[in-house]
Amino acid sequence: MPLTDDYINTKFANLEYSTDTFYLLYAGALVFLMQAGFAMLCAGSVRAKNAKNIMLKNVLDACVGALGFWAVGYGIAYGNLNGGNWFCGDSLFFLVDYENDNSYEGWFFQFAFAATAATIVSGSVAERCHMGAYVCYSTVLTAWVYPVVVHWIWSSDGWLSAFNPNPLNDIGVVDFAGCGVVHMVGGVAAMAGAAVLGPRIGRFNEDGTVNDMPGHNSALVVLGTFLLWFGWYGFNPGSTLGITADGYAWVASKTAVTTTLSAASGAVANLVLQYHLCGGGRHIYDLEATCNGALAGLVGITSACPVVDPWAAVVIGAIASVWYQVGAKLMIKMRIDDVVNAAPVHLFAGMWGLIAPGLFASGTNMRTAYGADPDIYGCLLGAKKCGNLLGNQLLALVMILLWTFGHMIPFFMLLKVAGIFRVTEEQEEDGLDVSKHGGSAYQMDDSSTKIKKPDDVKV
Amino acid sequence: MPLTDDYINTKFANLEYSTDTFYLLYAGALVFLMQAGFAMLCAGSVRAKNAKNIMLKNVLDACVGALGFWAVGYGIAYGNLNGGNWFCGDSLFFLVDYENDNSYEGWFFQFAFAATAATIVSGSVAERCHMGAYVCYSTVLTAWVYPVVVHWIWSSDGWLSAFNPNPLNDIGVVDFAGCGVVHMVGGVAAMAGAAVLGPRIGRFNEDGTVNDMPGHNSALVVLGTFLLWFGWYGFNPGSTLGITADGYAWVASKTAVTTTLSAASGAVANLVLQYHLCGGGRHIYDLEATCNGALAGLVGITSACPVVDPWAAVVIGAIASVWYQVGAKLMIKMRIDDVVNAAPVHLFAGMWGLIAPGLFASGTNMRTAYGADPDIYGCLLGAKKCGNLLGNQLLALVMILLWTFGHMIPFFMLLKVAGIFRVTEEQEEDGLDVSKHGGSAYQMDDSSTKIKKPDDVKV
Amino acid sequence: MPLTDDYINTKFANLEYSTDTFYLLYAGALVFLMQAGFAMLCAGSVRAKNAKNIMLKNVLDACVGALGFWAVGYGIAYGNLNGGNWFCGDSLFFLVDYENDNSYEGWFFQFAFAATAATIVSGSVAERCHMGAYVCYSTVLTAWVYPVVVHWIWSSDGWLSAFNPNPLNDIGVVDFAGCGVVHMVGGVAAMAGAAVLGPRIGRFNEDGTVNDMPGHNSALVVLGTFLLWFGWYGFNPGSTLGITADGYAWVASKTAVTTTLSAASGAVANLVLQYHLCGGGRHIYDLEATCNGALAGLVGITSACPVVDPWAAVVIGAIASVWYQVGAKLMIKMRIDDVVNAAPVHLFAGMWGLIAPGLFASGTNMRTAYGADPDIYGCLLGAKKCGNLLGNQLLALVMILLWTFGHMIPFFMLLKVAGIFRVTEEQEEDGLDVSKHGGSAYQMDDSSTKIKKPDDVKV
Repeated sequence: MPLTDDYINTKFANLEYSTDTFYLLYAGALVFLMQAGFAMLCAGSVRAKNAKNIMLKNVLDACVGALGFWAVGYGIAYGNLNGGNWFCGDSLFFLVDYENDNSYEGWFFQFAFAATAATIVSGSVAERCHMGAYVCYSTVLTAWVYPVVVHWIWSSDGWLSAFNPNPLNDIGVVDFAGCGVVHMVGGVAAMAGAAVLGPRIGRFNEDGTVNDMPGHNSALVVLGTFLLWFGWYGFNPGSTLGITADGYAWVASKTAVTTTLSAASGAVANLVLQYHLCGGGRHIYDLEATCNGALAGLVGITSACPVVDPWAAVVIGAIASVWYQVGAKLMIKMRIDDVVNAAPVHLFAGMWGLIAPGLFASGTNMRTAYGADPDIYGCLLGAKKCGNLLGNQLLALVMILLWTFGHMIPFFMLLKVAGIFRVTEEQEEDGLDVSKHGGSAYQMDDSSTKIKKPDDVKV
Repeated sequence: MPLTDDYINTKFANLEYSTDTFYLLYAGALVFLMQAGFAMLCAGSVRAKNAKNIMLKNVLDACVGALGFWAVGYGIAYGNLNGGNWFCGDSLFFLVDYENDNSYEGWFFQFAFAATAATIVSGSVAERCHMGAYVCYSTVLTAWVYPVVVHWIWSSDGWLSAFNPNPLNDIGVVDFAGCGVVHMVGGVAAMAGAAVLGPRIGRFNEDGTVNDMPGHNSALVVLGTFLLWFGWYGFNPGSTLGITADGYAWVASKTAVTTTLSAASGAVANLVLQYHLCGGGRHIYDLEATCNGALAGLVGITSACPVVDPWAAVVIGAIASVWYQVGAKLMIKMRIDDVVNAAPVHLFAGMWGLIAPGLFASGTNMRTAYGADPDIYGCLLGAKKCGNLLGNQLLALVMILLWTFGHMIPFFMLLKVAGIFRVTEEQEEDGLDVSKHGGSAYQMDDSSTKIKKPDDVKV
Repeated sequence: MPLTDDYINTKFANLEYSTDTFYLLYAGALVFLMQAGFAMLCAGSVRAKNAKNIMLKNVLDACVGALGFWAVGYGIAYGNLNGGNWFCGDSLFFLVDYENDNSYEGWFFQFAFAATAATIVSGSVAERCHMGAYVCYSTVLTAWVYPVVVHWIWSSDGWLSAFNPNPLNDIGVVDFAGCGVVHMVGGVAAMAGAAVLGPRIGRFNEDGTVNDMPGHNSALVVLGTFLLWFGWYGFNPGSTLGITADGYAWVASKTAVTTTLSAASGAVANLVLQYHLCGGGRHIYDLEATCNGALAGLVGITSACPVVDPWAAVVIGAIASVWYQVGAKLMIKMRIDDVVNAAPVHLFAGMWGLIAPGLFASGTNMRTAYGADPDIYGCLLGAKKCGNLLGNQLLALVMILLWTFGHMIPFFMLLKVAGIFRVTEEQEEDGLDVSKHGGSAYQMDDSSTKIKKPDDVKV
């Protein structure tokens, strides 16, 4: 029997669906591994006496995030079984009625993003935040604050979405993998949390000077940075949400290149900045600053990755490290104690990243990746209608700041007033691992005991 | 020349084969990375003086496992060139005649599973087991004990297999990614090994109380946990063994969701259990227990992942942590010193996981994933023929216990009688790293030496 | 409207392109993660006082490598817009005019390889090389020395290339994933660097004996080894550069199997060699040697992986560990202080690996993977024209040695003469972390402080 057209079409559709599903499972797994990256980065950046505490927070925000995003968050972000509206979704809670959707891979990929947004905060409030408060925060962020922004910018109903059939100013907001949606939301929460919580004991002196409180393990910082960078190859290329549709493979591979170059450029730029300008006169090759520069470069390219050329990615990464440095100085100026510089990396480089497409997006790329009007692209490249794009980007930036600060500051103040936000002074000074987690993360004594007589041991 | 149907069919077949091969290479690589996860988890969970020892065991069981599975194991599991039989395979040893098979990717994926089964034991017998004995054990497990169970449950000839043309009770055993095949086999071996080997010196007191012997590095424990969780996204979704066949992509993506939710739920449940009920009155937020809860949740969903709905995955994960706690208490009660709680995680949560499909599998899912009779699904969901499924699951559980204990206890006792199972008391107390591996895993002294005069150094 | 042949052909082409792109993005990401592997392996292998230094070098060679390979290297390797020549490419610099190529995924994958070649050196010159010199080196290697060898052996214009329309001796050089191109180039640079730089203070005694300078953290060594092994599943299988073309999936999956077996065999063989023959009479189970054996096995199979049968992979891996041991002894004999044994692993096992196809390649495999003349395969398997292959392999080996030593020795001597290659004696003895990077990588003191009164703290 000869092959029918129906048969062939079905075969193609099935192959495309299979390959796209595989692609999202792959990308989602890489993004999930960023949880390990954050855990190692944060653990290495705190003092040894709080290592278990912060890692438990990292584990828990992934877990609470999964449950919160299952129960509520995904529905708020994408639930449109009732027709959809511009503000937030209203169905698919608990993934009920989800099977008709045929897209479990979509939930998996989006969950990994939600967990990323949530975990950004752990580092900024480290070493003094109460565990219960942190669990409350994770729930609120993954179930409400974050998914609403997702809905605005990524769902087909959202009022700022580029995927809205009638997008704002004919283009909507270009936030490909989430400078605004993920990193700014996480970064604002990180800044708000650290500000309301107050600095660690001994961090700032009366005279305005700062006491350095170095992290306890640089190897964990580097490991975390590389795991995050690796995970970004799921985060950015994966944000096509598929690989078989026309042009998607080209876009995905371009994002891998721009992501790489921006990270590299951010790292090198930040090393140089820290050595010459921002190191307070200490001319050192700063490992942590270099790692944070790579991360700033990665955050900075997260909106623009599919719409800029390689040279622009190099520029964007370098400028991201400037925003990082400004953010870091500002934190200190405001006496906000952000232990791992989460706000400089995610909020400040994230703001820059959200603006970047408005400046550097090329016309060709905008048409390929977003089907844009030929006159809508980056202002620095001379677009006729560049205001449409740049205007949208700035509007989204402001709205995300308002929405997230507007929720998180009151929320954290509530926790503070209720007296459940911060551990006691004594617990803080003893270290949270001893106070709350049954002992230090490290038991190294016996390794130095080369010879111990049997009768010394209590049997 | 117009396209012929043959041409089109060949093209489709080739694309499907390519994509499926890629999928298995991807999934196998993720499962392989679980070796790193086990190594870090185990290393962090032992005392510093035995860190090199356990990591060498982890490296070696992967290597010996590869060689054993190449030479013998794979043939026992899947070798059916002589027609096949219900008990074990009998060909394809050393991968000879394998090329006709066209499925190197199959060996690779299966090897990664075998290595996982093998490495489960390293943690339970840590800190006192002789290296040579461990290598013997790895060989026996990967070449014989484990592959026979694989043949029973996963090959198309196995007497318990759901893929047998005439499956037991019309359905066979639903052990999708191996709660029984991998985790119970590894977990039984872990329990048997620890029981026969006896506890570490100083672990149990005469009066029945237990001395806590905390691991030396919590950062490694968390890193290991996250690497294992990441690897599970190869382990469970990869167990479709392909992605293009009708329905496979849907099944694979569903398993990613249920795997995530069960892990999350297991972690949270175990944190709560440990805090309120099982911590011996110490109200601490226990990091290791939370990590083990996530792992118990992951093990617990490994059979049921494609056949249950998301809510059921949450329930299964939470109950897995109860089984974990029961297992942990039982180990102590029986004065079995399982250093990393390998048996509670892999055997106890594994038994629960093997039972779970018999209770929670939904009809729709059973039909999609296993082409089941419409009346065969989980008892708690009201299936008419639920006994078929639950009965098979319980039968498999019993058979795996009998087969694995039946082999491993005599085997370990043989090693014990031969006097090659356990290191000497002095070696144990000095630590195995100093006794057997040339020195401690850590040489931290020089890092504190800020200034050392050149003439202090022996040149 | 019925489907046209054009439509169907376009659909197939697009699916193949999408799947191949995905495959390269996946494989490239895995290869990129090898950066984390090298960083951990190297960090663990140096003394604690130089941990930050070496990790910063590892981060920077990835970053500088990305920028150098973007600006110049890729064009040297593959730029053939002007027609191409046998020696080196001459276009595509800065990825300008690259879009017509439609292959960003190709740059990404190749960048990851370039970064791998670059980072091999960091370990051999560890603990005494100046940061600025290292950055210069990374630039020169990724922008010139390495890409020229790539062009020779992998581009379709290269004079040694198997992909040249008129390949040398009808076959060109079989260096599938780069024993010669990547590992020998990196290994030669590592050996040259360590030789010119001179040994660490205190490494060699006047009487010819050697002082052991053990690395500070074995857990990082094992983690690094496993991450590298994992990354090799991108490195070797990914080197098909696609998965959909006829036979590619079969070749890719075969390489996964041979890679696994060679690694396993190399590890076991090196453990045994070190215990019985090469450990200087110390009968220890050497963890680092076992890890290096696995790496030697991985390097050793990197040329031959698609063209040998599984049994041959086992043999090749075992012999790779012999070459490793010979290399290690030779380094000591020549008083070259190669801190992590980079040259034994990458140069010596790499030379063996480049020779191996000339001995063990099977006829069937050579035809499938390289479309070879039926008489061209391994000498030990009795090929009629085995000299064609073995001769080419030896020629490539010699040319790579000449080219790379010929560049790197003068380059390093220039750095030495300019006085910017090595840190001062005092800096070396203090440790580079304190001298150059603002302090030790580890701040463990507070973890032992169980109780600290509030009034002890400077507020």
